[in-house]
Amino acid sequence: MAKKIQILIVGHNENGYTHEVGKIAYETGAEVAKSGAVLITGGLKGVMEAASQGAKDAGGITVGIIPQNEASFANPYCDIVIPSGVGLARDFLNALAGDGVIVIGGGSGTLSETCAAYMYKKPIVAIKNTGGIADKFADQYIDHRKNVLIIGVSTPKEAVQTILEKIKSNTT
Amino acid sequence: MAKKIQILIVGHNENGYTHEVGKIAYETGAEVAKSGAVLITGGLKGVMEAASQGAKDAGGITVGIIPQNEASFANPYCDIVIPSGVGLARDFLNALAGDGVIVIGGGSGTLSETCAAYMYKKPIVAIKNTGGIADKFADQYIDHRKNVLIIGVSTPKEAVQTILEKIKSNTT
Amino acid sequence: MAKKIQILIVGHNENGYTHEVGKIAYETGAEVAKSGAVLITGGLKGVMEAASQGAKDAGGITVGIIPQNEASFANPYCDIVIPSGVGLARDFLNALAGDGVIVIGGGSGTLSETCAAYMYKKPIVAIKNTGGIADKFADQYIDHRKNVLIIGVSTPKEAVQTILEKIKSNTT
Amino acid sequence: MAKKIQILIVGHNENGYTHEVGKIAYETGAEVAKSGAVLITGGLKGVMEAASQGAKDAGGITVGIIPQNEASFANPYCDIVIPSGVGLARDFLNALAGDGVIVIGGGSGTLSETCAAYMYKKPIVAIKNTGGIADKFADQYIDHRKNVLIIGVSTPKEAVQTILEKIKSNTT
Repeated sequence: MAKKIQILIVGHNENGYTHEVGKIAYETGAEVAKSGAVLITGGLKGVMEAASQGAKDAGGITVGIIPQNEASFANPYCDIVIPSGVGLARDFLNALAGDGVIVIGGGSGTLSETCAAYMYKKPIVAIKNTGGIADKFADQYIDHRKNVLIIGVSTPKEAVQTILEKIKSNTT
Repeated sequence: MAKKIQILIVGHNENGYTHEVGKIAYETGAEVAKSGAVLITGGLKGVMEAASQGAKDAGGITVGIIPQNEASFANPYCDIVIPSGVGLARDFLNALAGDGVIVIGGGSGTLSETCAAYMYKKPIVAIKNTGGIADKFADQYIDHRKNVLIIGVSTPKEAVQTILEKIKSNTT
Repeated sequence: MAKKIQILIVGHNENGYTHEVGKIAYETGAEVAKSGAVLITGGLKGVMEAASQGAKDAGGITVGIIPQNEASFANPYCDIVIPSGVGLARDFLNALAGDGVIVIGGGSGTLSETCAAYMYKKPIVAIKNTGGIADKFADQYIDHRKNVLIIGVSTPKEAVQTILEKIKSNTT
Repeated sequence: MAKKIQILIVGHNENGYTHEVGKIAYETGAEVAKSGAVLITGGLKGVMEAASQGAKDAGGITVGIIPQNEASFANPYCDIVIPSGVGLARDFLNALAGDGVIVIGGGSGTLSETCAAYMYKKPIVAIKNTGGIADKFADQYIDHRKNVLIIGVSTPKEAVQTILEKIKSNTT
């Protein structure tokens, strides 16, 4: 099997994005790359761009799955662009493309991706103190079904280590 | 314009569904039908089926947009079935097909539909005391963007009246 | 089961559309309505609009499944609009929403819908002498798999009768 | 811009696939890899698998966009799997993900991808004498709109050279 481990990072687009969260996203992207996994993001700005830049600077491979039908809408740090053409429903494509998901801050789009990942029972971690959805759902289940616990973590390094452990225990 | 007003009702599938919530869903579906609007649902069981049955019993038209690619997966109270074939990403189709959304209880799927509706700035009301997502988000915004307030209401009648007012003020 | 029979009519949008083909589309839509079936179309102009107008004038119910995410892009003869938001991939939604398909003329979009219907093994008829895809594929299979023969017919009435027979023999 | 050139190869799945066509697909995948472009395929068997294997053996990067929602359905030569979860509508995702398309033989699914690419005005080449759709549409337009000519070529090398020229002239 040629397939590499694929990790999805989700979080704010430009709106709601801060320099501090961007730094965390950059480092998380770099950690994904260092682990040898492929980084998947929604391919746009904010956390998606910062994480992709971090992964590229660390020598990784980056994929951006965007709502639009033209690759030119993606940020410049995506090696591969999937211009889905399905609008915001691409949130479900993102969730399915990740073997596991790391949540950094985020708003309604991030929550939609997190719900999708939860319904498909993907491992999910949330980096605490990044605000938004990450803090709202860290260490919680999204609903009474308790599909997967959203594991709260403290650092980019811990995020990637934890998600890799969960992915590996899923596939063995 | 032949187009009728289209109201989406979202809530639990079988899992998490109670008799009490079913009664509210049935009545809300009936109120939608009495208003002359078309009822849109996710076409499966639980709240979706109860609302559709209520609408049919009140002489309305019902549409079920389902994840599967065969109409036979829909509940028996859908006049028209859209077997989307796109899996759970059909949550976005539901949200787009509703001119407004009524939330009754609900879990992660309901939350995903609510996020989709919120991102597309659709009017949203939640019937209080139905548990799950409806109670968690009634009278709140999903994120800092404050796209649309999820208006908490107390009864099926109030839900339909409120959503119709919001839909009408959107289109004038 | 409340579900009505759903018949998809496909054909040219404005580009490639002629008055003559429009008349046939109008009559075919009317025949669908008279049979009691729901008319499904792609909801835009050309054949889609003419068929929908015919169905409305004959007292039928019409559904338009459009690529865009706003109902206002649909033609004015759709009772129900499904603004899919998935771009041209909505061709697959159309094919799945039809229990059978009637092809009238048509270009690449019509061919894409016909391929989708063929892959999902839906009954397909093509009205001969309407040009484009209808004439190119009437009485033929799309490929060596011979999933379904595209049955060539001569009139709107024959188209609807034939597709109804095929749909009924599929479900019994 | 980190983005690499992305070339989509389309053709038969297992059904309709021959050893001879497989050899051509393998060589075409290898040529894509040697050019430095990323290979996109539908990620399943037949031409998709042979092309992916060729690209891997030549040191390239391969992406498989599959209809299912689990990566395990992909062939073993995909570095990155996009389990779209949208069923056969993934044909549109494939077409959008390719900056250009190479058609090798193929049936109704290949034709659906070719129509999608044609509607989105992507450069398309067809390798002649590979049967099916490639031979049926080589050196032709799909419809009267004449969006893009499907350029007939004779060898894998010519296919990749031609598609790269067309992609480059599109972006300058």
